[in-house]
Amino acid sequence: MEEKTISQAVIGRLPRYYRYLGDLKDAGMERISSGELSELMSVTASQIRQDFNNFGGFGQQGYGYNVEYLYNEIGKILGLNEAHRLIIVGAGNLGRALTNYSNYENRGFIFEGIFDKDEDLIGKKVGDLKVLPMNELEDFIIGHNIDIVVIAIPKTGAVEVADRVVKCGIKAIWNFAHTDLNVPDDVVVENVHLSDSLMKLSYMLYRND
Amino acid sequence: MEEKTISQAVIGRLPRYYRYLGDLKDAGMERISSGELSELMSVTASQIRQDFNNFGGFGQQGYGYNVEYLYNEIGKILGLNEAHRLIIVGAGNLGRALTNYSNYENRGFIFEGIFDKDEDLIGKKVGDLKVLPMNELEDFIIGHNIDIVVIAIPKTGAVEVADRVVKCGIKAIWNFAHTDLNVPDDVVVENVHLSDSLMKLSYMLYRND
Repeated sequence: MEEKTISQAVIGRLPRYYRYLGDLKDAGMERISSGELSELMSVTASQIRQDFNNFGGFGQQGYGYNVEYLYNEIGKILGLNEAHRLIIVGAGNLGRALTNYSNYENRGFIFEGIFDKDEDLIGKKVGDLKVLPMNELEDFIIGHNIDIVVIAIPKTGAVEVADRVVKCGIKAIWNFAHTDLNVPDDVVVENVHLSDSLMKLSYMLYRND
Repeated sequence: MEEKTISQAVIGRLPRYYRYLGDLKDAGMERISSGELSELMSVTASQIRQDFNNFGGFGQQGYGYNVEYLYNEIGKILGLNEAHRLIIVGAGNLGRALTNYSNYENRGFIFEGIFDKDEDLIGKKVGDLKVLPMNELEDFIIGHNIDIVVIAIPKTGAVEVADRVVKCGIKAIWNFAHTDLNVPDDVVVENVHLSDSLMKLSYMLYRND
């Protein structure tokens, strides 16, 4: 497939397509037209066709897309056909919630380790994992071929953790700390700023009145 | 202030401005120019001015913005000068993580209750709250003037919960379930689809190689 520069907006929509197609596949649906998908997802059919055309169009014929094919192709684009090995820094409630998120593993996201600086947590079990001390972070990342680090600690420690993991070659950070991370250009950061999200909701509620 | 239609993109950026201004205020900074703010936030100065012009410009003078004034004004726009009363449906790790998120209360987000259908969790303490059974949901929402419902349960139950809370007048849902909710037009939903976010990271990592 020829590589084009794909806009962030399109990329942001891919996981949602993938989610809907997975549900359709699980429900036994074999084909779907862009019109039906449009109605289901509340997106215009022309938007769907434009989005898919970024990736060669996925062979939409008069009778629609093959659901399983489309699901698998979008999965490949999302890099889900390769396993990703993750660690979580922060074994508080949020870190624990993230390890327990059940449907990651099916999609190739494997949680290999969880770390905390709190002596009381070190050695405790979180699911199948034992909480490890922060001084083992670098060796673990290198020894276990970790490719994604999840930062689930307060903002005070987050910048230092990001620096440490980037130094051992990590190129992807899933950041839940309430701060932006300054990382080199070749490192990707996906922020989940929960407070920002809640404030956005507050704004919409307030303006809605 | 005259009301204009503000784009979702601008709204999406407001909490980030608010976060940076809060940090500057806490650090004792009194004034900041759009140039300095631009450098700090890695956003162009013209973007900042355009964004702020949606709200009247906040009195940028030659010598810059008053940090505390700007912080407070953006807070007001975000509806943070009014208290919001929240409940969480789902007392699993994620629900517990959300109640413990420390910096909400300062901004007027008050967690009033947490609910679960799991008999083993009902009556247990989560922070200062006791987990309540699902059959008390409607009475609690009405009796405690709840205005935001947080859905932190798997997708199977989420749609039914959304229907129930909308029926008792809830106009804002913070949705962590891995599904989109169909709600009436006057109800705002802010989705935090963690799997979508992780897949986006996977995409960026994969394309980055």
